[in-house]
Amino acid sequence: MEKLKIALLGLGNVGSGVYKILTTNKKIIEKRSGYEIEVAKILVRNKNKKRNVDVDSSLITTNFEDILNDDEISIVVELIGGENPAKDYILKSLEKKKHIVTANKLLMAKCGTEIFKKAQEIGCVHVCYEASVAGGIPIIQGINEALTGNKIQQVIGILNGTTNYILSEMDTKGMSFEAALKDAKAKGYAEADPTSDIEGFDAVYKLDILTALCFNKKVADDKIFREGITKISKCDIELAKEFGYKIKLLAIGKINDGKLEISVHPAMIPTDHPLANVNGSYNAIMIKGDAVGDLMFYGKGAGDLPTGSAVVGDIISVAKNLNNKPNCLDLFDENDDEILKDFGDSVAEYYLRMNVLDTPGTLAEITSLFALNKISILSLIQRGNRTDGKTDIIFMTHKTKEKSIRSFVKAFENLTDKFKVENIIRIENLD
Amino acid sequence: MEKLKIALLGLGNVGSGVYKILTTNKKIIEKRSGYEIEVAKILVRNKNKKRNVDVDSSLITTNFEDILNDDEISIVVELIGGENPAKDYILKSLEKKKHIVTANKLLMAKCGTEIFKKAQEIGCVHVCYEASVAGGIPIIQGINEALTGNKIQQVIGILNGTTNYILSEMDTKGMSFEAALKDAKAKGYAEADPTSDIEGFDAVYKLDILTALCFNKKVADDKIFREGITKISKCDIELAKEFGYKIKLLAIGKINDGKLEISVHPAMIPTDHPLANVNGSYNAIMIKGDAVGDLMFYGKGAGDLPTGSAVVGDIISVAKNLNNKPNCLDLFDENDDEILKDFGDSVAEYYLRMNVLDTPGTLAEITSLFALNKISILSLIQRGNRTDGKTDIIFMTHKTKEKSIRSFVKAFENLTDKFKVENIIRIENLD
Repeated sequence: MEKLKIALLGLGNVGSGVYKILTTNKKIIEKRSGYEIEVAKILVRNKNKKRNVDVDSSLITTNFEDILNDDEISIVVELIGGENPAKDYILKSLEKKKHIVTANKLLMAKCGTEIFKKAQEIGCVHVCYEASVAGGIPIIQGINEALTGNKIQQVIGILNGTTNYILSEMDTKGMSFEAALKDAKAKGYAEADPTSDIEGFDAVYKLDILTALCFNKKVADDKIFREGITKISKCDIELAKEFGYKIKLLAIGKINDGKLEISVHPAMIPTDHPLANVNGSYNAIMIKGDAVGDLMFYGKGAGDLPTGSAVVGDIISVAKNLNNKPNCLDLFDENDDEILKDFGDSVAEYYLRMNVLDTPGTLAEITSLFALNKISILSLIQRGNRTDGKTDIIFMTHKTKEKSIRSFVKAFENLTDKFKVENIIRIENLD
Repeated sequence: MEKLKIALLGLGNVGSGVYKILTTNKKIIEKRSGYEIEVAKILVRNKNKKRNVDVDSSLITTNFEDILNDDEISIVVELIGGENPAKDYILKSLEKKKHIVTANKLLMAKCGTEIFKKAQEIGCVHVCYEASVAGGIPIIQGINEALTGNKIQQVIGILNGTTNYILSEMDTKGMSFEAALKDAKAKGYAEADPTSDIEGFDAVYKLDILTALCFNKKVADDKIFREGITKISKCDIELAKEFGYKIKLLAIGKINDGKLEISVHPAMIPTDHPLANVNGSYNAIMIKGDAVGDLMFYGKGAGDLPTGSAVVGDIISVAKNLNNKPNCLDLFDENDDEILKDFGDSVAEYYLRMNVLDTPGTLAEITSLFALNKISILSLIQRGNRTDGKTDIIFMTHKTKEKSIRSFVKAFENLTDKFKVENIIRIENLD
C-alpha cells in the first residue's frame, strides 16, 4: 500500500487525539483512504513537555522549516490555534503545494478568504476545516455538499460546549454562574482564562464561518453582535423555567431581503424545542433550508477525540481526493459588512428583570416609559419583599425592536439611580 | 456557463420535487456546481397523468432508449423506486458511462453490491444515493466522509416517517392504531397499501444500507429481524408512559466481536432520550463512533422537497466531481449472512402484556414459568376487573435473551387456551 506522509502542527489536546485515532484505527483508515497514512513529523514549541500520547521522539521538531522543506509530506494538519504563526505556516505550506487540514476557527473566521485565495492561486491543493466548527459534528460538509440545492434561510446553533455546560449545570443543579464556571474549570470544560468561551468570542468565530457557507456572504467577525453569559443568574434561569423556557447561548444567522442578521447572545427558547434539550458540553446546529426544511445536527463539539474525528475525516477525504481537482475553494467571499442588518433593527420578544424602589407610582412610571417607547407588555411578575423597600419586577414584552429596548433602558435608568435593569434576555420562539 | 444535461426517470412525488428545486434555485445551483444544469429528458409511464409540476411536454418520454442513447445526457436520476425496471435502467446507463443518482432504498439494499461492481468495472462513473435513506438528512455522506476515522459501534434510527407519525398521534392524541393509520392516509403520510411502512420493510432496506456503510458488512435484507407496529395498542403506549418510556419503531445495528446484531422493531425508549422527542413524520439517526462519541442527525425523512434536496445535493456533487476519480465505489461487500448474530441470542429488557383467567394460583404459575426460563422480573402491574373474570398483567423483565422470552411464551400459551400474551415489546435503555 502506498504511503501518504502528513505532518501535525501542534500536539496538544486535539493533536494528541488525532495521533491516537490514526494509530488505533490504522487498519480501517487504510481501507477507507487507500493509503497508509504516516505521521512523519510533529511540530511542537517545547520538546520536553509531557504529552497525553506516546510519540516517537524522532518525529518531534521545534522547527517548522523541517516540515516545510520535506517534499514527502503532502498534508499539513494545523492544530496550533490562533492567528499567528498558524496563518504563516498555512500560507507557506500552500506555496509548497501541501494540502491543508485545520481545526482553527479563529483563523478561518478572520483569514479564511485570504487562505482560500492563496489555495486557488496555487491550484490543486485542498483546504479542509471541518473541525473548526462544532468539533465532531459534520456540519461544514453537510452545508457544503448535501445542502447545496437549498436556499438556506436560517442557521441556529449551540456552538460552545463550555457555556452550554455551565448553563446546564445552573439549570439542573441550581448552581450560580460562578460556581458552575469553577466546576467547568475543574472538569476541564473551561480554560484557565475562560473569556473566549463565556464572552461568546468562540461562538462568534464559528458562526462567522457557518454564515459564510450558508449564505455565501462573509462579514468581519468583530462586526457580529456578541453578548456572553456572565450576566445570567440563577434567578433568570428559574424565571425562564416558570415561563416555559430554557436559557441557551445561541448563535443565530438569518437572511432576509439580502440582509444578514447575525448574533451570538443568551436567549430563552421553549423547553420542548429540540435545541432546549441539548445539554452539558454537547453542541447542536439547526438549519432551515427552503427544500430540506428543518435539519438538526447534534454531537460533541469539543474534546480530543471528537475534534480529532473531524480532523481525521478531513485527512482521509484529502487522501481520497489527492489527485482530484479541489471543488470547494471559492466559498468565502470578501468581507462585506454592508449586508449586515443593524442589530438595533432586529426584532424579538424581551425578558427584562429590574429592581426598583417599592413606592407608590413606580409601576405607573415604568409602564408609561414602555408606552413611550412603543413597547407592548405580554406578561408581568412583581415579587416584593417587605424588608428592604425594593422589589423585583419582571416584564416579558411582545415583539419589539432592540433599539426600542435600548431607548427604554436609557430613559428608565435616568429616572433615578435607584432604578436598575438587572438583566435583559431575548426570547426566541424559534418557529 | 457550460451546460450539464441530466435525465429524470420518474416524475412522481420526488421527481416533481427535484424538478421544482432545480428550477427555483437555478442561480445558486449554478454558482455552487459550476454548471447550468438542464433537465433534458424525463421518463414517465403515462404521458397524460396530471403532475404536481409544470414541465414542458417536449421533455417527456415513455421510452427509456431516448435517454440511454442521448450521449449529451451525463447524469441519470432514478426516481422510479422498486427493483425493476430501475435496476435494468441503472445498469444500462452505467454501460453508457452515465453517472447515477438514485433515491431507491429497496434497490440499493438488494442490489447495491451489483450496481457498485458494474460502476467499478466501467470506471469514472459516480453512483450517489443520499436520498435512499432518511430523505433530506445527509446521513450517507456523513458516514462515508466525515466519520471515516471512526470505528462505528452502533447506529440507531427512526427511519420511517409514516410509522413515527402514527405512533406520535397515538401518543399525543390517544388514538388507536387503526384511527391513526386512517389519519396518516388522509394526510398523505401513508400509502393506500401501507404494508411496507407499517410492517417495517421500508426501515429494513434503509438499515441494511446504513449497516453496510457503518460496519463495512453487508447482509441480505430478508435476513434482518423485522417486526412492524401493527400490534402496538393505545394501552401499550399508556403503560409505556407510566414506566417513563415512549414507543418508537427503531432500526438498530450494532457490532460486537465481529458479529452484527441488526433488527427493526418497536421499542420502549426513555422519554428523556433525544430519539424519544423525534415526533411526527421526522426521522433521526444516532451514531456512536469510537472517536466522535454520540452523534445525532435529525430532519424530514420523506416528502417531495426534503428528498429532492438530497437528490439535488447528489446531482451537484456529481457535477463538481465530474472529471474527478470516483472515490467511494467499493463500500458494499458481498452479502455475508454468517456474520449475523442469531436474533434469539440478542439481549434486552422486555415488556410483556398478558391477559389471563383471574383464578387462585395463576400468578404463581406464571412466575414459576419465568423462573424456569431463567427470566428475572423487574416490575409487575396487575389490573383486574371484577366483571369478566379475566385480568391484565404487565411484566417488565431484567435483561434476558430473546430465545428465553420465546420459550416462556410457548410454555405459557400451552398452559391453557385462556392464557394469551397480548404484546411483547423490547425495552432499549440506549445507554
